Amino acid sequence: MLKKNSFEDNKRPLDVLNYAKNKKVVVYLKNKTIISGLLRALDIHLNMWVDDADVQTDDKTTKFGRILIRGDTIIFVSPVEE
Amino acid sequence: MLKKNSFEDNKRPLDVLNYAKNKKVVVYLKNKTIISGLLRALDIHLNMWVDDADVQTDDKTTKFGRILIRGDTIIFVSPVEE
Amino acid sequence: MLKKNSFEDNKRPLDVLNYAKNKKVVVYLKNKTIISGLLRALDIHLNMWVDDADVQTDDKTTKFGRILIRGDTIIFVSPVEE
Amino acid sequence: MLKKNSFEDNKRPLDVLNYAKNKKVVVYLKNKTIISGLLRALDIHLNMWVDDADVQTDDKTTKFGRILIRGDTIIFVSPVEE
Amino acid sequence: MLKKNSFEDNKRPLDVLNYAKNKKVVVYLKNKTIISGLLRALDIHLNMWVDDADVQTDDKTTKFGRILIRGDTIIFVSPVEE
Amino acid sequence: MLKKNSFEDNKRPLDVLNYAKNKKVVVYLKNKTIISGLLRALDIHLNMWVDDADVQTDDKTTKFGRILIRGDTIIFVSPVEE
Amino acid sequence: MLKKNSFEDNKRPLDVLNYAKNKKVVVYLKNKTIISGLLRALDIHLNMWVDDADVQTDDKTTKFGRILIRGDTIIFVSPVEE
Repeated sequence: MLKKNSFEDNKRPLDVLNYAKNKKVVVYLKNKTIISGLLRALDIHLNMWVDDADVQTDDKTTKFGRILIRGDTIIFVSPVEE
Repeated sequence: MLKKNSFEDNKRPLDVLNYAKNKKVVVYLKNKTIISGLLRALDIHLNMWVDDADVQTDDKTTKFGRILIRGDTIIFVSPVEE
Repeated sequence: MLKKNSFEDNKRPLDVLNYAKNKKVVVYLKNKTIISGLLRALDIHLNMWVDDADVQTDDKTTKFGRILIRGDTIIFVSPVEE
Repeated sequence: MLKKNSFEDNKRPLDVLNYAKNKKVVVYLKNKTIISGLLRALDIHLNMWVDDADVQTDDKTTKFGRILIRGDTIIFVSPVEE
Repeated sequence: MLKKNSFEDNKRPLDVLNYAKNKKVVVYLKNKTIISGLLRALDIHLNMWVDDADVQTDDKTTKFGRILIRGDTIIFVSPVEE
Repeated sequence: MLKKNSFEDNKRPLDVLNYAKNKKVVVYLKNKTIISGLLRALDIHLNMWVDDADVQTDDKTTKFGRILIRGDTIIFVSPVEE
Repeated sequence: MLKKNSFEDNKRPLDVLNYAKNKKVVVYLKNKTIISGLLRALDIHLNMWVDDADVQTDDKTTKFGRILIRGDTIIFVSPVEE
């Protein structure tokens, strides 16, 4: 399961999202909300600008054309493979 | 669903709100309050000056002519398309 | 609903409260307490000096001649129009 | 209700407590504890040295000759008028 | 109840604990634990080195020869008068 | 149980994860989620880039090809011995 | 109970753990987890590298060969006397 050769030593965690710019990401928040949409920009606080966002809370999904997510509400983020 | 060509590389997340100044935004807070109103000013902490604000808590909406929202209470913000 | 002409570009969110000095404000706290009174001073942490304060918790209101509110307990603040 | 003439523009919120040194204050904490006593010293974090302190939690009051209250546990503080 | 003459103007809150070094203190934590023991050292974050510590949680007291308490878990500390 | 001779004095806690790069780690989060996967990068905030991640919440495990975990949500991390 | 002569004035709280390196410590976390093991390294944030760790949560103990504990999850730490 180890892929040692693929390791690039000077990579930083936030590069995960730099590579994901303009692609779809899914964001899991501390309050159990899940947001998916196109990542447009991020900063070192993990504040994220997301377009075409689906915000899923409990049993309800709300659509937003554009949102700014505050970074300190995030647990983890994943680029969506397509 | 990807719009790669529309990506502007030096954009920052808070630009979402810079573009939304003097327009209507909706703000989702950590305590489940939802505030909508005209965005007048913001700073890097996401503190926001909002005019003509509707503050919706549980089943009640209260109107305020002008409010200052503390940034660390915010989950996400969206400009309202009109 | 947009009032673009009224926008002053170098305004900061805390100006809401600078304009409200010596006027009545109402402060909503994270613990659901609501405090109203005369704003005497504030700082960048949103610490606020309030005189003639009514502190409303659950079903009880207590009066204080002078209080210092710690800024990190605040959700939002509104100047009271009179 | 406005007292505009009494406003001193360079006042800071923590001056409320500087004026209250060696006087009785009542401190409301985030965990619903209420502490009253003589304020001896404070710093910019709102850490406070209080003498002859009554610490009231739920239905019990405990007396302490001298305490140090950590500032980040405080909601608001009021000088006691006598 | 005021003791104005006893006020030393350049005292700082943490001096309460500097005076209490090598004496017994009681520490009230945010999680309702109460710790008493001999204060050996402290820093500006209120991290504290305590020897011969009794840690009281709910209905149980556990003894430790030496502990380090993380400062951000503390509500207030009191030197024990003997 | 003491291995005094094995102590290297200038080691730092985050070296645990530097040694674990490109190996499998298991991450325990404050919200009781457990994430296991290949550690690709980390920074001083404990933000972590993890590939081939199994995210286990309550009774459900979800697979992600690549995730960024926000460091402030972590309780502890362990390299998986194989 | 006072041992005034034993006081070394320039000691710092974190020295408790510097003295405990390569010895067994027990760590009490904010989420009620208790971790015991050999302390290998620590930093000023109280991040700790612990080997041969027993992680006790509720009624279950899990063993880990090596873990990194995030400092901000800690309430207190004690070296285990042997």
